[in-house]
Amino acid sequence: MVERKVILSGMRPTGRLHLGNLHGALDNWLSLQEDYKCFFFVADWHALTTDYTHPEAIRENTWDMLLDWLSVGLNPEKSTLFIQSEVKEHAELYVIFGMLTPVAWLERNPTYKEQQQELSHKDLSTYGFLGYPVLQAADILIYRAHGVPVGRDQLPHIELTREIARRFNYLYRRTIFPEPEALLTEFPVLPGTDGRKMSKSYGNCVYITEPSESVHKKILTMVTDPQRKRRSDPGNPEVCPVFSLHKIYSTEEDQAEVIRGCTTAEIGCVDCKKILLARMDARLEPIREKRRKLEVSRQKVYDIVLDGIEKARREAKITMELVKEAVSLNHDLGKGRD
Amino acid sequence: MVERKVILSGMRPTGRLHLGNLHGALDNWLSLQEDYKCFFFVADWHALTTDYTHPEAIRENTWDMLLDWLSVGLNPEKSTLFIQSEVKEHAELYVIFGMLTPVAWLERNPTYKEQQQELSHKDLSTYGFLGYPVLQAADILIYRAHGVPVGRDQLPHIELTREIARRFNYLYRRTIFPEPEALLTEFPVLPGTDGRKMSKSYGNCVYITEPSESVHKKILTMVTDPQRKRRSDPGNPEVCPVFSLHKIYSTEEDQAEVIRGCTTAEIGCVDCKKILLARMDARLEPIREKRRKLEVSRQKVYDIVLDGIEKARREAKITMELVKEAVSLNHDLGKGRD
Repeated sequence: MVERKVILSGMRPTGRLHLGNLHGALDNWLSLQEDYKCFFFVADWHALTTDYTHPEAIRENTWDMLLDWLSVGLNPEKSTLFIQSEVKEHAELYVIFGMLTPVAWLERNPTYKEQQQELSHKDLSTYGFLGYPVLQAADILIYRAHGVPVGRDQLPHIELTREIARRFNYLYRRTIFPEPEALLTEFPVLPGTDGRKMSKSYGNCVYITEPSESVHKKILTMVTDPQRKRRSDPGNPEVCPVFSLHKIYSTEEDQAEVIRGCTTAEIGCVDCKKILLARMDARLEPIREKRRKLEVSRQKVYDIVLDGIEKARREAKITMELVKEAVSLNHDLGKGRD
Repeated sequence: MVERKVILSGMRPTGRLHLGNLHGALDNWLSLQEDYKCFFFVADWHALTTDYTHPEAIRENTWDMLLDWLSVGLNPEKSTLFIQSEVKEHAELYVIFGMLTPVAWLERNPTYKEQQQELSHKDLSTYGFLGYPVLQAADILIYRAHGVPVGRDQLPHIELTREIARRFNYLYRRTIFPEPEALLTEFPVLPGTDGRKMSKSYGNCVYITEPSESVHKKILTMVTDPQRKRRSDPGNPEVCPVFSLHKIYSTEEDQAEVIRGCTTAEIGCVDCKKILLARMDARLEPIREKRRKLEVSRQKVYDIVLDGIEKARREAKITMELVKEAVSLNHDLGKGRD
């Protein structure tokens, strides 16, 4: 039997996920879990790189995100779901990788300066922020992952991970780590209620497990083609953010119908949105239903996460044994080793 | 009952220790273990900061150092003896401290540039080397140590540890960490066989558990007062490196006798050295004897170290619970927590 390839991905704990997360990342994870050995983790240590002054929400956000993952259909029978900080081996490998990673590699990381500017209201001049690609390399390589689904902005980090893997293998004359491939997941930007990219920081999100009425309210007031000022004006679906959602949720027939109706002003925006909402409800209601069930059986979720942590640790420990042997930290302590 | 204050100290695994280590650090540890709750550890991760390209010796050096510690009288009933890399919580706390330590604090560390120059044949421009004071802070604060015996060159690191403790307590509005005091241990430099400071890199060491004949050979060819060229020349004990050893090993009477004999040329250097060697043998033979015994009962030593690791982990976990609560990484996972 051929061992399935290993895929790893993580998300910072931002709390409840929105439709941009669902169609950007999670849909992709759902299809990956069918074919690969997948590890998906909540990157709670990484949350501290930017939020160390106000970490209060991490704990609850972690919980909310895990519930959303399970609600959309990540399947603990197929994927290993866990929390980064519960697998200390990530930190152990980070210490060791740090020893052989030149500071210059990190300083030349394009997202380092970029993020510092973008988030200039936060003090990001910390050692942890400088080294978060090293921690990311440890996250990936501790499972000797072959592939990492990422967006284009993450490509430099995957390249750094490959460099660290190569350097480690070279220095210690053995091939412990594969050089993981970036699995570029390109998808059209999902518009939020104001027409800009859906993003928590814009306050324009529709959340995956938001109640139906609330989704309806948001969609019914969502911006449409700005040129269609009156009901009698014909509209242009190609520039309408609501139509971007139709492309995801509606059937081809619905879409054809909406295009015809909109461009001839036969239907109004409210009509169009009602067609969309019926389709959205059909897709999202089972997810909402699943979340409601999970929320009342906390111990079941704990057990799933505890199992995931256990499985992740088991894999991580195997890698660490190899690593420790390579760097001569495999102390012989007779029987009682952990 | 008043809880005893906690003292922490470590050494990089350099293998068998020499008399400079014994009288510089270990004698001090032996007296500290009588009055304090002491944690002494082999800093094997720290060894990687400078030796990551050639780590082969770390494993054996760790073992040799632990045997020497036990041979000189570090008592596992009184002190907790362990290996850094076996207590992953050090790495965990290092990750968290890194998040709140400005890179500028590390760059201004005087030993950073100094060591880079001093060891310019090695590539020390790594992330791990830049951050080793952060790891050191984690080593100290994970046991919430009150005191750290150090040499003068280590003072900036202790200051940085205090700053990190202060910043953590301030950011999270609680007092988890004490600000540890540096316990300056000043002692006269111990000369090696060539009269320079005893140091492995000079190849002028006498080792603590070196066989008697070998010690005799080294001491009998050790340099003395360079002005005393002939047996008939009177010597000056104050500038003679051999007399520095007399000050440690010989009785007041012996020393008085040697001063008289040397300054009057009544005794020669060999006579003087023989007096010294008798005293050295008296002090070192029980240590050598202990080491011989330990070497043939490896499992006993393993058990001591495993116990030490267990004790260290227990303490470290208590601190990490407090830390994780402070930074909101105390995930509720129901019953099954580790």
